[in-house]
Amino acid sequence: KINGDRLWDSLMEMAEIGPGVAGGNNRQTLTDADGEGRALFQKWCEDAGCTMGLDQMGNMFARREGTDPEALPVYVGSHLDTQPTGGKYDGVLGVLAGLELIRSLNDMNIKTKHPIVATNFTNEEGTRFAPAMLSSGVFAGIHTQDWAYDREDAEGKKFGDELKRIGWRGEEETGARKMHAFFELHIEQGPILEAEGKDIGVVTHGQGLSWTQVTVTGKDAHTGSTPMPMRRNAGLAMARILETVDEIAWGHAPHAVGAAGHIDVYPNSRNVIPGKVVFTVDFRSPELEVIADMENQLHEKATQIAEAMEVEIEFEKVGGFDPVAFDAGCVTAVRDAAERLGYSHQDLISGAGHDACWINRVAPTAMVMCPCVDGLSHNEAEEISKEWAEAGANVLFHAVVETAEI
Amino acid sequence: KINGDRLWDSLMEMAEIGPGVAGGNNRQTLTDADGEGRALFQKWCEDAGCTMGLDQMGNMFARREGTDPEALPVYVGSHLDTQPTGGKYDGVLGVLAGLELIRSLNDMNIKTKHPIVATNFTNEEGTRFAPAMLSSGVFAGIHTQDWAYDREDAEGKKFGDELKRIGWRGEEETGARKMHAFFELHIEQGPILEAEGKDIGVVTHGQGLSWTQVTVTGKDAHTGSTPMPMRRNAGLAMARILETVDEIAWGHAPHAVGAAGHIDVYPNSRNVIPGKVVFTVDFRSPELEVIADMENQLHEKATQIAEAMEVEIEFEKVGGFDPVAFDAGCVTAVRDAAERLGYSHQDLISGAGHDACWINRVAPTAMVMCPCVDGLSHNEAEEISKEWAEAGANVLFHAVVETAEI
Ligand SMILES: NC(=O)NCCC(=O)O
Ligand SMILES: NC(=O)NCCC(=O)O
Repeated sequence: KINGDRLWDSLMEMAEIGPGVAGGNNRQTLTDADGEGRALFQKWCEDAGCTMGLDQMGNMFARREGTDPEALPVYVGSHLDTQPTGGKYDGVLGVLAGLELIRSLNDMNIKTKHPIVATNFTNEEGTRFAPAMLSSGVFAGIHTQDWAYDREDAEGKKFGDELKRIGWRGEEETGARKMHAFFELHIEQGPILEAEGKDIGVVTHGQGLSWTQVTVTGKDAHTGSTPMPMRRNAGLAMARILETVDEIAWGHAPHAVGAAGHIDVYPNSRNVIPGKVVFTVDFRSPELEVIADMENQLHEKATQIAEAMEVEIEFEKVGGFDPVAFDAGCVTAVRDAAERLGYSHQDLISGAGHDACWINRVAPTAMVMCPCVDGLSHNEAEEISKEWAEAGANVLFHAVVETAEI
Repeated sequence: KINGDRLWDSLMEMAEIGPGVAGGNNRQTLTDADGEGRALFQKWCEDAGCTMGLDQMGNMFARREGTDPEALPVYVGSHLDTQPTGGKYDGVLGVLAGLELIRSLNDMNIKTKHPIVATNFTNEEGTRFAPAMLSSGVFAGIHTQDWAYDREDAEGKKFGDELKRIGWRGEEETGARKMHAFFELHIEQGPILEAEGKDIGVVTHGQGLSWTQVTVTGKDAHTGSTPMPMRRNAGLAMARILETVDEIAWGHAPHAVGAAGHIDVYPNSRNVIPGKVVFTVDFRSPELEVIADMENQLHEKATQIAEAMEVEIEFEKVGGFDPVAFDAGCVTAVRDAAERLGYSHQDLISGAGHDACWINRVAPTAMVMCPCVDGLSHNEAEEISKEWAEAGANVLFHAVVETAEI
């Protein structure tokens, strides 16, 4: 078993970097705080005897050698970046559990046939630069690196420039590495495991996602002196579309969700009828056809709303991934590990997207989940118990070591 | 008659300071650009032989002496600050027409019994610091100066500090001046004069306003892994309230308007269900009871929406003024001037708030309006013709000079 106290202490130490305003973290991708978090992770990995690789997307690979020089490494990890008002565990747990299993192997003096590589993927969250899971996506050949470098944050700064600025743009070609397998431990970010009283989620599938950025253009005008019938209020059109998004998602319940988390209103002045609103609709479902249907309904109904209100509307798909079925062999390794260690467990479909979802395209992949309090994530109040973290890391440890072969 | 070319040239020269992105202006209050605009106005006034007064709210008073040392001055003016995406005429026309009438009096070598003071009031727009008409409000004793100094912009900077920073916080006690009368020329910012083919609006009344800042607090949560029934989506609650605001305003048509121009969503991340939304509802009507009724309906219906969605809601009144009836004598002076000069004219109720609305509390006041293209204002595309500007300034000139007595 891994050392749960050490894992927890590392989680708490990492959480000191990029503190939030309410006990969580704001360590958004490619900020100075992200750079600091990376430096701490690198130091810990080197202290554990690993060599650090860094690719052109800033993905970090801390390698513990295996005994067979021909054997491909087993990769394990997640992401260190957080939401602007994020928790201490989302992503970080998976990265530091990867480190912890290397530390534990060192303690136990265990050699594996396959090397083990603890990994930190850049920009999983997708808040500062859409889409989410950007760098695992480039690694898996989903996006080109040039396209990724051109992604812009709200201030117009480019991903490629910011990666260079914080000093974490490596030389290694992204995606050149071959993986024997990939495992990711992550908090569930949903309520199921806690409600069912289970220690471990064996993630068999991940639901798919569609992000549509909607731009509604009306006409800036005075809120006082513009008669009601002359208004082309982009804010009101947005309001009607948000209601429709909710209806569309409920219309596909319980196998779909939908909301808009990002809304920018222009010029955002109390006495100006909004002339432009830009917002992103997030639809998800484990079923590809459901996602497609929700997207179509959005286009159709939002266009109707816009036409009736005489405002312009544009749709841009700014993120998306299809539902995923993880590798049967890796999933079995996770389930067997949980069983062997005596943890209660159940199969799960991940509600969130994860780097594992893209890596699954290029290597056999599976995920382990542990519960989180009230199913709450993407919130500074995100919480887990040390026991949950430990159980998850133990299952990860066993699945990885079994796959890496002693 | 005033010199229409000179007035127009000054308007165009002022518009070079704080240019917008689409042909208009972004010369928001207490920015560096505001400071530059003030300096230019001061230079012009001094070139015209005026002495400049500056009060503790940054209100500027350019005085042309009268012949009677006992006579109170006739004030004339408006504001030089603009919306973030504002036009070149909103406010500026009224200030520079005040200057132009002094220049014309100099040209004609006319002395008036009462001094004439061309005035620029600080922060009329209220975008950066709510409420609008802040400094004419302090002048008229509506707000205390300490309260005004404490108003904060979106970055938490205080009005008092920013006024000092740009170097335009004067020594003179705000509101200590006594006015014989006050006249303000302003573009209509609405469609009536153009539609009716009238040169001049004789403003008899101003409609009242209520700004209610609404804060909806739900719970930040993951857009993917949070089941629909567990969501407390502050963004969706805001959408429903915006729809209600529209219904309430239409319910009082044609004597009321309502909209929200300011909307901030937190944490504003594509994959976080909004945990907090802050927005400002702007209701207006010429009838006090209608405003009160709309406010009450908003509180009641928005509270119902919040309760049904299990989100918290708070209301804060961040701006407001009652409907205004301008001084009968001053209104007559404006109407007579338009008549005498042979301009087509009609009586108007101002849809927007103006510094004149507050000054009317402490001095006999009236307003002159000229048309603007398509009734458009609070938009960079705001436009007027030189002829409209000239006609408005001529009526202002005659009303002021008649009141100031030759
Ligand atoms: N795990 C996680 O929160 N990933 C961010 C991408 C998503 O929104 O699902
Ligand atoms: N005239 C003008 O636009 N004033 C700003 C205050 C208001 O919103 O009415």
